[in-house]
Amino acid sequence: MRKVYLDNAATTPILPEVLEAMLPYFKDAYGNPQSLHDWGDEAREAIEDARGRVADLIGAQTEEIIFTSSGTESNNFAIKGLAMAQQSKGKHIVVSAIEHFSVLHSARTMEKLGFEMTQVPVDRHGIVDPDEVARNLRNDTVLVSIMHGNSEVGTIQPIKEIAEVVKEAGAIFHTDAVAAAGTIPLDVRELSVDALSLAGNQFYGPKGVGALWLKKGVRIIPFLDGGVQEGGRRAGTENVPAIAGLGKAAKLAKAEMESRIKHLSALRDRLIAGLPSRIEHVILTGHPAQRLPGNASFCIEFIEGEAMLLFLSSKGVAASSGSACTSRALKASHVLTAMGISPEIAQGSLLFSFGLENTEEDVNYVLEVLPPIVDRLRQMSPLYAKFLKRQKGGR
Amino acid sequence: MRKVYLDNAATTPILPEVLEAMLPYFKDAYGNPQSLHDWGDEAREAIEDARGRVADLIGAQTEEIIFTSSGTESNNFAIKGLAMAQQSKGKHIVVSAIEHFSVLHSARTMEKLGFEMTQVPVDRHGIVDPDEVARNLRNDTVLVSIMHGNSEVGTIQPIKEIAEVVKEAGAIFHTDAVAAAGTIPLDVRELSVDALSLAGNQFYGPKGVGALWLKKGVRIIPFLDGGVQEGGRRAGTENVPAIAGLGKAAKLAKAEMESRIKHLSALRDRLIAGLPSRIEHVILTGHPAQRLPGNASFCIEFIEGEAMLLFLSSKGVAASSGSACTSRALKASHVLTAMGISPEIAQGSLLFSFGLENTEEDVNYVLEVLPPIVDRLRQMSPLYAKFLKRQKGGR
Repeated sequence: MRKVYLDNAATTPILPEVLEAMLPYFKDAYGNPQSLHDWGDEAREAIEDARGRVADLIGAQTEEIIFTSSGTESNNFAIKGLAMAQQSKGKHIVVSAIEHFSVLHSARTMEKLGFEMTQVPVDRHGIVDPDEVARNLRNDTVLVSIMHGNSEVGTIQPIKEIAEVVKEAGAIFHTDAVAAAGTIPLDVRELSVDALSLAGNQFYGPKGVGALWLKKGVRIIPFLDGGVQEGGRRAGTENVPAIAGLGKAAKLAKAEMESRIKHLSALRDRLIAGLPSRIEHVILTGHPAQRLPGNASFCIEFIEGEAMLLFLSSKGVAASSGSACTSRALKASHVLTAMGISPEIAQGSLLFSFGLENTEEDVNYVLEVLPPIVDRLRQMSPLYAKFLKRQKGGR
Repeated sequence: MRKVYLDNAATTPILPEVLEAMLPYFKDAYGNPQSLHDWGDEAREAIEDARGRVADLIGAQTEEIIFTSSGTESNNFAIKGLAMAQQSKGKHIVVSAIEHFSVLHSARTMEKLGFEMTQVPVDRHGIVDPDEVARNLRNDTVLVSIMHGNSEVGTIQPIKEIAEVVKEAGAIFHTDAVAAAGTIPLDVRELSVDALSLAGNQFYGPKGVGALWLKKGVRIIPFLDGGVQEGGRRAGTENVPAIAGLGKAAKLAKAEMESRIKHLSALRDRLIAGLPSRIEHVILTGHPAQRLPGNASFCIEFIEGEAMLLFLSSKGVAASSGSACTSRALKASHVLTAMGISPEIAQGSLLFSFGLENTEEDVNYVLEVLPPIVDRLRQMSPLYAKFLKRQKGGR
């Protein structure tokens, strides 16, 4: 059976070159980077080299990169550490309604510590209006966190425009770029943000490693307390092989970005164009133009995403229904409902996220196997029966 | 030149079998374990298999294991998460004076959130007296954290006896077993603790992965907020290859523990016996009997540990002077000073930590190269000149 992996938003595979770059730090240069001997020196050099590569990917300075264990840790670190560092100035945090749970739940934790949080709404395409952010800024707003690209619906925010209003109000601006960094070009100086999260497993690097970029001079309270690693800002023995892998992935992402975007967006557009003519009552979710190149997300009305996933899986196709971080929670996605999609329709969420290995044939295969799955599920769907009856009655 | 790695306390190398066990999860089963398809299923099975292995290593139940990114994260999670979960009952935390900084500094962070911390002293061998713990327990003590084995001086605590007094007082008892788990036998039920930290890179597993064992029924507040991973207790995409590696390392550690201990303690004892007859004014630090099998730690009087490390490194020998997590901080170790060693003498700290690859020849090599290094450094040492003068005057 054909095997088609279209769940790159959950995690990309690792590139063979990236794994190759990691192996020496498993096998030979296995020392602790803090140690004062050859084994430590080699490990330390690998980390500093990777730091430079990651900085290069996002237009940052090398020493502004702090390695973490994941995008989730980067977001926890940013929200909690920046809020704590600013608390003498105020205790108000602003986020968007469609943030990843690692941002939203971190902000909720800060609420328990005496902070207030405001969620800025999004429009039907998932876009945050900078004016809406401005309206929600207060004298005591110390931190604003608006994500760059959304992994579920692909929408890319006008970060630069939002940064302008945040700067004007004198607050710190963090962006969760976990789904965007390494996938589309981004430059932290141009975006004019103060902090940015990214993760290795979103652009063909390893799992278990991420980074927080923090503009020089911006204060943060450490999240992981302990040793002196990462300039005293993030304790814990450095995951040297994974960091080396992240560096390699960053280097490749920068070099190949243009051709990758071309490849991915062609596949995405082919699926987005092809699906509605083969399946009725399909809604494209997210912004039609301002979207991540590999993201084709839909709501298929009258049926449930989970059921489609199981049938697709039986045909060898890996897709998802919303975020992998919540896939087992079986609740309508907060991202879709924030965009004004009813919980009923949001249940039919289906996300195909393309990767470098995918081909036109993969798209054709989905266009071939999905319609009969949808037909079959709709035949069993009470919602669909009700719809047909209503439609008939209306005639 | 001979290359002798004697810094296994900083990090062990990874065993080839462990790396082998990780590779499939880089190359093929690269899915996100939360995803509902074959790639996700394989990854999820690997995690659950590893969870069982780690549980098995410490006599725990499978579902009591929470994977983290390091021993440092496990300790942060334990101290902060357990204290927060108990705060309605009281806000007093008890730790020992020789905890790892990931415990000590986490407790300091809790102080900033309104908790109080008491540090229990240790004797000259680094042992925590259970009676001393008892004397420091109060009505509002909710959490006690005493490490199992100390990585710097090797001392193993009477955890079971301490657990008895903690239980009697009704507090939660956590032990940082990062240096002990996988190295010496330990059984969480027998120790009668509530929570225990461990790390992969301390017993031939990968860096970037650790675990917190939490007794069923013990409440904890998540440290990493976000997705639903690890039963909602630790968010972030699981580092599948590293977790699989940790599982393999745990399995090997359990199967080979007896022979490993025999091998390591023979090397340790050979060095401890041989050094004082070749170098004058050497003090063995830590407990003479209750100590980790691979740990040979000394203070070499009148000279500095760092200088010895550099000369040893030039002879191909990797050792350390205290904890790798603080090696660049250039301060006298808080562990040694807590044991009553003067800051002056503590500067001459030198730790050889043995691993599976080491041989008797490695010990012989250290016994051969170290004395001339010490001689040379002492010739340049004002402290030693002063000592000689004083000694001469005394005759």
